[in-house]
Amino acid sequence: MTDAQSPQKRKHIILTSHPNATGEKVHPIRWGASDPLERGPIIGSVRSRNHRNVIGTMGGAYSVYRALAVASGVLDPNHKADFTNTAPVVEFGPYPSWSDPDKIVSLDPLGAIAPNIFSSQFPKDDYDIGPTIAVTKAHIQIPELKDEIAKGRLKVDGTLLKADGNLRVTKAAIDPVWYLPGIAKRLNVDEWELRRILFQQTGGMFPELVTRQDLHVFLPPIGGTTVYIVGDIGAIADPTKPLALRVHDECNGSDVFGSDICTCRPYLVHGIEVCIQAAQAGGTGIIVYCRKEGRALGEVTKFLVYNARKRQEGGDRADAYFLRTECVAGVQDMRFQELMPDVLHWLGITKIDQLVSMSNLKYNAITHSGIEVVERIPIPPELVPADAQVEIEAKKSAGYYSDTGGLSEEDLAKIKGRDYS
Amino acid sequence: MTDAQSPQKRKHIILTSHPNATGEKVHPIRWGASDPLERGPIIGSVRSRNHRNVIGTMGGAYSVYRALAVASGVLDPNHKADFTNTAPVVEFGPYPSWSDPDKIVSLDPLGAIAPNIFSSQFPKDDYDIGPTIAVTKAHIQIPELKDEIAKGRLKVDGTLLKADGNLRVTKAAIDPVWYLPGIAKRLNVDEWELRRILFQQTGGMFPELVTRQDLHVFLPPIGGTTVYIVGDIGAIADPTKPLALRVHDECNGSDVFGSDICTCRPYLVHGIEVCIQAAQAGGTGIIVYCRKEGRALGEVTKFLVYNARKRQEGGDRADAYFLRTECVAGVQDMRFQELMPDVLHWLGITKIDQLVSMSNLKYNAITHSGIEVVERIPIPPELVPADAQVEIEAKKSAGYYSDTGGLSEEDLAKIKGRDYS
Repeated sequence: MTDAQSPQKRKHIILTSHPNATGEKVHPIRWGASDPLERGPIIGSVRSRNHRNVIGTMGGAYSVYRALAVASGVLDPNHKADFTNTAPVVEFGPYPSWSDPDKIVSLDPLGAIAPNIFSSQFPKDDYDIGPTIAVTKAHIQIPELKDEIAKGRLKVDGTLLKADGNLRVTKAAIDPVWYLPGIAKRLNVDEWELRRILFQQTGGMFPELVTRQDLHVFLPPIGGTTVYIVGDIGAIADPTKPLALRVHDECNGSDVFGSDICTCRPYLVHGIEVCIQAAQAGGTGIIVYCRKEGRALGEVTKFLVYNARKRQEGGDRADAYFLRTECVAGVQDMRFQELMPDVLHWLGITKIDQLVSMSNLKYNAITHSGIEVVERIPIPPELVPADAQVEIEAKKSAGYYSDTGGLSEEDLAKIKGRDYS
Repeated sequence: MTDAQSPQKRKHIILTSHPNATGEKVHPIRWGASDPLERGPIIGSVRSRNHRNVIGTMGGAYSVYRALAVASGVLDPNHKADFTNTAPVVEFGPYPSWSDPDKIVSLDPLGAIAPNIFSSQFPKDDYDIGPTIAVTKAHIQIPELKDEIAKGRLKVDGTLLKADGNLRVTKAAIDPVWYLPGIAKRLNVDEWELRRILFQQTGGMFPELVTRQDLHVFLPPIGGTTVYIVGDIGAIADPTKPLALRVHDECNGSDVFGSDICTCRPYLVHGIEVCIQAAQAGGTGIIVYCRKEGRALGEVTKFLVYNARKRQEGGDRADAYFLRTECVAGVQDMRFQELMPDVLHWLGITKIDQLVSMSNLKYNAITHSGIEVVERIPIPPELVPADAQVEIEAKKSAGYYSDTGGLSEEDLAKIKGRDYS
């Protein structure tokens, strides 16, 4: 290690690469090409340094921990991953959307099968091509569902839903893979401008964003997506079969700890219930779980906003709900639902019979992406927790879908939350 | 935007800064200094470009979404955050550990109060100094606790725990702030070597890691930590008052969705139960929730390993539990518990009466950091889910704490999990 500290060694570090500076020409990624071999693999591993054809690396933020493992000597940086028996337990697609460069821009539709389809052309010893999607099966237990079964609101069928409340699901974990020209187009900004701002607003993360304009795919170090599927996988892309869907954005405080200031977990559980019913009716139910804590503002900002809401003059009021977030973060929401439908297109969805969401942002993003939505399912009023009226009424008045519509400004101001005293 | 595309503009982008290249001298961070003004603020915002004294930026990975917000024109990059009413709802410390540069190296002990304590010396118009920690209050509802109340295992006290199952907590969200010399020392590696490997293993993230050796603080784009506190805050640092603690690493599949392949949620809920009892006995109960999905290998790797375990010859066996992870990831675990005790020292903890964890890695990290552990509480056998025997027996044989000890190799091989057929 000591010689690594010598000025000589330091000079050997390439701070940022340049297209003309790389001796070897990297294998191009032809995003949207229908033939996988023409599309080409995502080569993001640092083990394949000479072959890398993306900006960033595998595992996103977890590459920081991988670096700790290498630095402390517990992980061999040249470890060759053994993907034996790891392939998806069920097959998805390919669907027409997979080869439409505009339909999917924030994940790799080939991400689950990449190690297999490219293995012969790209030998493992030279090319470290890992999956960015993993598909497995699970049995899950949702405590609230046992009550629903007891109440008779949910019927035990013995195969999908067992008497003990065990629910059989297929699930997929998806890491983000961004095709930058497509992301720019989706957000209606110039690609170069997007790359420059991504570099500058992150404090100088990945200079390749501005030096490697020959590389158009970026693996951002942000949280990924998990998909839970109940019922017949084959029915997902069949518009004649019922499909229920909830797109749920992470809210650790409610999803795990049951905070009563928002509707997140109760609505998620209701979504799972609707999914089970769709599956029991011969269709499929899907939960898409997106790691976008606190509207992608992060949990620290979220807690700051809670304090500002509770302490503001007049207390926590529905009519000031969004304003408090803007004061702290400068914006109400950074989730960019415009990118969210990609996972639905990866699943081959063309029609959603029941969308378990009140969000106009999600509804607009989904329908604008060409997916039909038949019915929108609001959260049942009895499931709204004690302190969450402020959130739900503020959202309804801001354009969220509901059967009853939003309150008047006057009535909105009357909706108060708990204070700290 | 169009002129931003001109070659002229492109030249204006500084790919990486250099200490001698920065005109203005940045305010130094004297890590571990007891006087906050001598320690100095963490200035990580890109709005304070000329004053930045760290590598990376505020919000970690969420800065990628902030970049999208700026690029798409919905967020003013010069937005001045208004932190009115956002200050912590309770005060922690300062404790002696706050000014010990070896006790805390992965978070900023001043992170919750930074905007206030530095406001006079660092005017808001020039310096964008935000909190990296937020402290708020909440009422939470854990469905499983209602059963415990019904069974009489948990007693309703009317103040902390209400009859309807509502539990009053104080909670803190903490973003990582890494003092690189301290991180290197904790991992027993050379700081320069750590910085070089962090840069290279992340695919070239933050060249400042190698160009700005005058900057020793790094804001990594990794998930943070959330702390849930039940009971008397003032009792946390008082070794004469009972203190219960569970350090829980994120497992979304169990924590939120109740997967039965691991013990995560049941053990977390048991931890909350023990915390409530400690609080009701006049002490405090603390849950530390760390965003380290799949042992900091990420959820994609986790699902790949599930498939490899279920499909391997002989099926899912306790004696091959860790091997399957090593084949895919090259290492069993990347959580680096060595950094975990920092949050305990931020809380002023010196003695833990009940540690609700069986992990030898966590126990060793906590005790080696100078905190006394009186009792270790394993998960009650009746809480281990159907398919989780493989995990728990494998861990016990690998050195996890238990009342009964680990099985023989022969018996370990007999512990089988569910297969996919």
